[in-house]
Amino acid sequence: MRPDSAADASEHDSMKISARNVLKGTVVSVDKGSTTAHVKIEISPGQVVTAAITNEAVDSLKLVAGGPAYAVVKASDVMVAVD
Amino acid sequence: MRPDSAADASEHDSMKISARNVLKGTVVSVDKGSTTAHVKIEISPGQVVTAAITNEAVDSLKLVAGGPAYAVVKASDVMVAVD
Amino acid sequence: MRPDSAADASEHDSMKISARNVLKGTVVSVDKGSTTAHVKIEISPGQVVTAAITNEAVDSLKLVAGGPAYAVVKASDVMVAVD
Amino acid sequence: MRPDSAADASEHDSMKISARNVLKGTVVSVDKGSTTAHVKIEISPGQVVTAAITNEAVDSLKLVAGGPAYAVVKASDVMVAVD
Amino acid sequence: MRPDSAADASEHDSMKISARNVLKGTVVSVDKGSTTAHVKIEISPGQVVTAAITNEAVDSLKLVAGGPAYAVVKASDVMVAVD
Amino acid sequence: MRPDSAADASEHDSMKISARNVLKGTVVSVDKGSTTAHVKIEISPGQVVTAAITNEAVDSLKLVAGGPAYAVVKASDVMVAVD
Repeated sequence: MRPDSAADASEHDSMKISARNVLKGTVVSVDKGSTTAHVKIEISPGQVVTAAITNEAVDSLKLVAGGPAYAVVKASDVMVAVD
Repeated sequence: MRPDSAADASEHDSMKISARNVLKGTVVSVDKGSTTAHVKIEISPGQVVTAAITNEAVDSLKLVAGGPAYAVVKASDVMVAVD
Repeated sequence: MRPDSAADASEHDSMKISARNVLKGTVVSVDKGSTTAHVKIEISPGQVVTAAITNEAVDSLKLVAGGPAYAVVKASDVMVAVD
Repeated sequence: MRPDSAADASEHDSMKISARNVLKGTVVSVDKGSTTAHVKIEISPGQVVTAAITNEAVDSLKLVAGGPAYAVVKASDVMVAVD
Repeated sequence: MRPDSAADASEHDSMKISARNVLKGTVVSVDKGSTTAHVKIEISPGQVVTAAITNEAVDSLKLVAGGPAYAVVKASDVMVAVD
Repeated sequence: MRPDSAADASEHDSMKISARNVLKGTVVSVDKGSTTAHVKIEISPGQVVTAAITNEAVDSLKLVAGGPAYAVVKASDVMVAVD
């Protein structure tokens, strides 16, 4: 359609992404701030991941508590720690 | 199938992502290193974006020069500069 | 002057940076939140990039809609997606 | 205790982390926004580092001006610039 | 000792970190490249997270397959996706 | 010249950047890998910051041990830790 346009992510309904970490879960909470929202996704029982994304993205993806969602993280953004 | 499993990105064929920046273009080059690859995508005439991703992702997405691709960037990873 | 001091970015008027992606454009909008601002930069007709930066940086760079600006992204923060 | 659970960072009191940059300093200011806080840490005389973290993390770590703290940065998030 | 020095992460044995996501698991594989290593950590059965860290960090943390480890991710580096 | 083009960072000689952290120092070492280089910059006596950047950027900025350089970090990429 608009071959060269930057587009709202919601227009890309069938993307496969290079990010190595795509963790399926359920939205636990959505907390919108003035520009930045915090979304919590439970990816396995008791294991909750927090994402800080734009309010705009929350609206675009229609994120609500209870809905399914993936937490997506680029491998270069993952650190490792040991006790 | 594996409802709670982390999965290879290539299994997620219809994701909409919160990342605000999805720039459509054409792969110009793919340069694999020992673990990290550099992929260049021309997003408009003369405007080339460089992505550093895993070799694994290059294989998973079957990226080759000449093919279509999107450069995807989270808004919090974009800086602004002025002259 | 202050050779070892951390300095406000505005003091560095002639830096060349390692970030591989420097996309020239025009500021479309500046939306300040309580601490984080969203700045939209049109980098080619219809192609808009969103940056989430500090309110402080918006003031320091005197960013206003209509002004010229670059969207700057480190290569390791760029992902690739395919349809 | 909860071997598989994602846990609040405050439960991990003895982690060693892969992040290459751990700069010791003193908290100069804590500015909480609606969801995102800005924390300034002086890492040597006159050298101040700004961190944008969640309000939640500020509370969890009990960060207050005057207290000791480290600024921690993954090597892949550090750029290099020259004049 | 060296109160103002940047130090190897391995010297900080009892840090609590602001990163909201600390996922406990077991190292599945360590693949060192020329400078960058890929470490895979299974955080729950079938759920594997990939981290791209420096070879130096792999050595410093003595990461080996089979050992315990945490995958640590800052909230601002987590995206959300929906089908 | 090329008003809309993405350009090599080396063409932007007078940028002011939104990144809040610009730490002046001296390059201690440059270790090029197959695609990713590690550059160490001493920002104050004993305080060394490690940057993982592209080999391409090392060449573009002509980074060599002993030369002056800045370590640049976006505030949203800085975490905070306490003992």
